[in-house]
Amino acid sequence: MRLSTVRLPAPDSDGLITAAARHEADELVLLPYPDVGVLLAGGEDWQHRAAAADGERLPLEGASLAPVVPHPNKIVCLGLNYATHIKEMGRPTPTHPTLFAKYDGSLVGAHDDVHMPSVSDDLDWEAELGVVIGRRARHVTRDEALAYVGGYTVVNDVTVRDWQHRTREFLSGKTFEATTPVGPSLVTPDELPPGGSGLVVGCSVDGHTMQKSNTSDLLFDVAAIIAYISTIITLLPGDLIATGTPGGVGAGRDPKVFLRPGQQLVTFIEGVGELCNTVVKDRL
Amino acid sequence: MRLSTVRLPAPDSDGLITAAARHEADELVLLPYPDVGVLLAGGEDWQHRAAAADGERLPLEGASLAPVVPHPNKIVCLGLNYATHIKEMGRPTPTHPTLFAKYDGSLVGAHDDVHMPSVSDDLDWEAELGVVIGRRARHVTRDEALAYVGGYTVVNDVTVRDWQHRTREFLSGKTFEATTPVGPSLVTPDELPPGGSGLVVGCSVDGHTMQKSNTSDLLFDVAAIIAYISTIITLLPGDLIATGTPGGVGAGRDPKVFLRPGQQLVTFIEGVGELCNTVVKDRL
Repeated sequence: MRLSTVRLPAPDSDGLITAAARHEADELVLLPYPDVGVLLAGGEDWQHRAAAADGERLPLEGASLAPVVPHPNKIVCLGLNYATHIKEMGRPTPTHPTLFAKYDGSLVGAHDDVHMPSVSDDLDWEAELGVVIGRRARHVTRDEALAYVGGYTVVNDVTVRDWQHRTREFLSGKTFEATTPVGPSLVTPDELPPGGSGLVVGCSVDGHTMQKSNTSDLLFDVAAIIAYISTIITLLPGDLIATGTPGGVGAGRDPKVFLRPGQQLVTFIEGVGELCNTVVKDRL
Repeated sequence: MRLSTVRLPAPDSDGLITAAARHEADELVLLPYPDVGVLLAGGEDWQHRAAAADGERLPLEGASLAPVVPHPNKIVCLGLNYATHIKEMGRPTPTHPTLFAKYDGSLVGAHDDVHMPSVSDDLDWEAELGVVIGRRARHVTRDEALAYVGGYTVVNDVTVRDWQHRTREFLSGKTFEATTPVGPSLVTPDELPPGGSGLVVGCSVDGHTMQKSNTSDLLFDVAAIIAYISTIITLLPGDLIATGTPGGVGAGRDPKVFLRPGQQLVTFIEGVGELCNTVVKDRL
């Protein structure tokens, strides 16, 4: 099953509302939940509820997609989780997962603009497998961990590289407003290999492939990541984990290459989906 | 005005609910909002609504206090923001604020237990001035910034020190479940000096003072912090900023000293309030 969060005209204003939707061939079936996060938070039978509900249909093509979970309680990101990226960033191989956060104001939908802030020209790509938590997880073992996955999605952990390295903490460069596309949908685990492993992951800029790797190269795999985070804190339904990026980022090139306004950033994961975002420069 | 979030028996179950409450002498006046965060998010007239509402009263003494904002959209923390702490941690003086995050699952109330995780014995204190955002803030200048403060509170950014330093990112050691007391109340800016400056801040463990400094020693002051974060992302009503800790943490001592189960951690800020938390060891 594939689920998205779609934007719709508000019935009684000029604004927009969102709704969770189930993919059926080339249509979206609207579900009685304001987004996929609310669907997941409503109880562990969410797959049954999502599959059983019927509602208004609209064409998938041209639909305005919000971030698949617009307001996760937590966005947990991994740094340094592919050997190729660790090497290009000149870091030692980590013995523990490197975790950092983003806030939900950084998220945009699968076809939304990605905003280059006025204060930086060093906007860089980071294609990543996203994991959406389906069930509350605390102190789960690695063997149990995949049972807590609600589904997989595509994330580009777009980074303001100079702000990332202003201090020793990544957060400042990782959570600029409207920089991080996530979607187009949540793909339930039954449609993919266990742990989302063995999938081609990468991105292109204006048609030139910049990253191309495979999720089987993750240093800490999805089960290990979930078990580790759940040692620290309770993962909740809808929480988003960005599992880290492979080699090929702009800052790892010689000379460095960054995104330019007007460029098209396409992020892909085999069997999961594709993000297609245009870079725009913020004026303020 | 002082506002707290108080826990109450649920009317129709064995569980608990919460309510926002206004302090009046030695009583709490319950407000028609489930917590202070919801009150703040309801519109910029929140001070008026909080002052005008009348409701059931209960004694302040013995009230069960939740984190003053239990579910902030963002918790933004500053590292390395007092010269004395920068020196004891052996870091250079930063040129930009060092930002990192916590998740709301780490928060506890002013008199709740602080949980030492089963996986570490290196639990350390960090007394901090907390700032709660009162109005949506994006691209605000330092001169304007204090108008976006909803109020001040007390935070102890209790840290699992060995996990903080497992990787180069602080997050893992900063967001363990139920480690971070915040409260007892939000104190509106009219009751305090501008920017919450000039206040004694510190903490004690079993009656021994461990940190004692003054908020006027902040390297980046409250206005500078708000302006800086608002360059990156939109601050929302209820967002919590922990402004950094002064010298005197356990890891900065020789030999290092950490919290032990059963110890009482008291965190104080002059004119803002006091947290009093007992350390308990998690079994799992």
